[in-house]
Amino acid sequence: MCLDRPQGGIKMLKNPEDRRARRSRKLLKESLLALMKEKSFSEISVRDVAEGADMNRGTFYLHYSGTTELLQSLEAELLEELQALVDAHMQETVDDGTVRPVLEPVLDFVVEHREICSTLFASSEATGFIQALQQLIRRNGTYLVDTWFHPQDESATDYLLSFLTWGAIGLLKEWFSQDMALPREELTAAAQRMVDGAASSLFSQGRPA
Amino acid sequence: MCLDRPQGGIKMLKNPEDRRARRSRKLLKESLLALMKEKSFSEISVRDVAEGADMNRGTFYLHYSGTTELLQSLEAELLEELQALVDAHMQETVDDGTVRPVLEPVLDFVVEHREICSTLFASSEATGFIQALQQLIRRNGTYLVDTWFHPQDESATDYLLSFLTWGAIGLLKEWFSQDMALPREELTAAAQRMVDGAASSLFSQGRPA
Repeated sequence: MCLDRPQGGIKMLKNPEDRRARRSRKLLKESLLALMKEKSFSEISVRDVAEGADMNRGTFYLHYSGTTELLQSLEAELLEELQALVDAHMQETVDDGTVRPVLEPVLDFVVEHREICSTLFASSEATGFIQALQQLIRRNGTYLVDTWFHPQDESATDYLLSFLTWGAIGLLKEWFSQDMALPREELTAAAQRMVDGAASSLFSQGRPA
Repeated sequence: MCLDRPQGGIKMLKNPEDRRARRSRKLLKESLLALMKEKSFSEISVRDVAEGADMNRGTFYLHYSGTTELLQSLEAELLEELQALVDAHMQETVDDGTVRPVLEPVLDFVVEHREICSTLFASSEATGFIQALQQLIRRNGTYLVDTWFHPQDESATDYLLSFLTWGAIGLLKEWFSQDMALPREELTAAAQRMVDGAASSLFSQGRPA
């Protein structure tokens, strides 16, 4: 897909052409994010993004077909990293019986990428991102709910998962709107209590010990 | 704001000019909704909407400055009716101690306006509507949470409300995606259990009897 994806394995990664292309794409992403803080995505032109990265439009089009592809590429990259992080902590989370082992590194990741995350959360054009994030939470949450609560009622489980995953988006929105002032340990503990409370109450049974 | 808002009280409502104008606006809204089922809002022109309502573009512009104002007017109308419905059932809800007295008429309203609601919920351009709906739920939910749970911790309450209100949006999304197959009584009961469970668990205290 990328015009300059390395073709020859590790050695090619050191190719100066390739490194230059990766640097260009990084600069274009940073330029887009900086512009999204000032105006809405639909008002941003390829020329704006290219200028912000000290490039001409021709160079932009070597990498992306337009601003939409650039935004989607940025979102996809973030979601991929997030899923990798979740994968790395999934087993520990299952064993621990709480969301802490996965939620704390995820919140660290969000803090580390706070600029990108808060821009994407605030932008109405990036609703595709919030939907995709909700689906990521749901995919992984489904596995946890199945493992922890052994629900018998499939329809109730669908509603629970929709409630919990959109609720989690709500928690993140609140956290951003309060400039992430709440320590991540407290946010994690609050999330755990609400997830436990809602699930136990819906299934009218306690959690297996 | 409306060019043809009645100026002379009740009597003017029977003015044939005025009734014609209201009928035109209704037809334009229906035309927009029909088009939104076929294509995305940004692809819909004033000409499309006018043609769908058997009018010319000039007549459209007597009522709205463009498709965006028409969509916003439609959303605002729906939210106003919804708030009036909530107001009418608020005291009963406070007294009852459950969300049933307000949620059941709201779900009836949603079923009655299922076409508008599912179109607005599915359209990514109508995200303003979902945000506004979430804010409506939050305004009213804040009052109920204060009255029912007497929370001491303001920050925890903010997070609870964000969790619950986005969770409620999630429940509605799930309901639409399952073609409202779940009886509204069961959806109401499930919502009540999850709200109770999450709130009680977060505040680590039972509900006042």
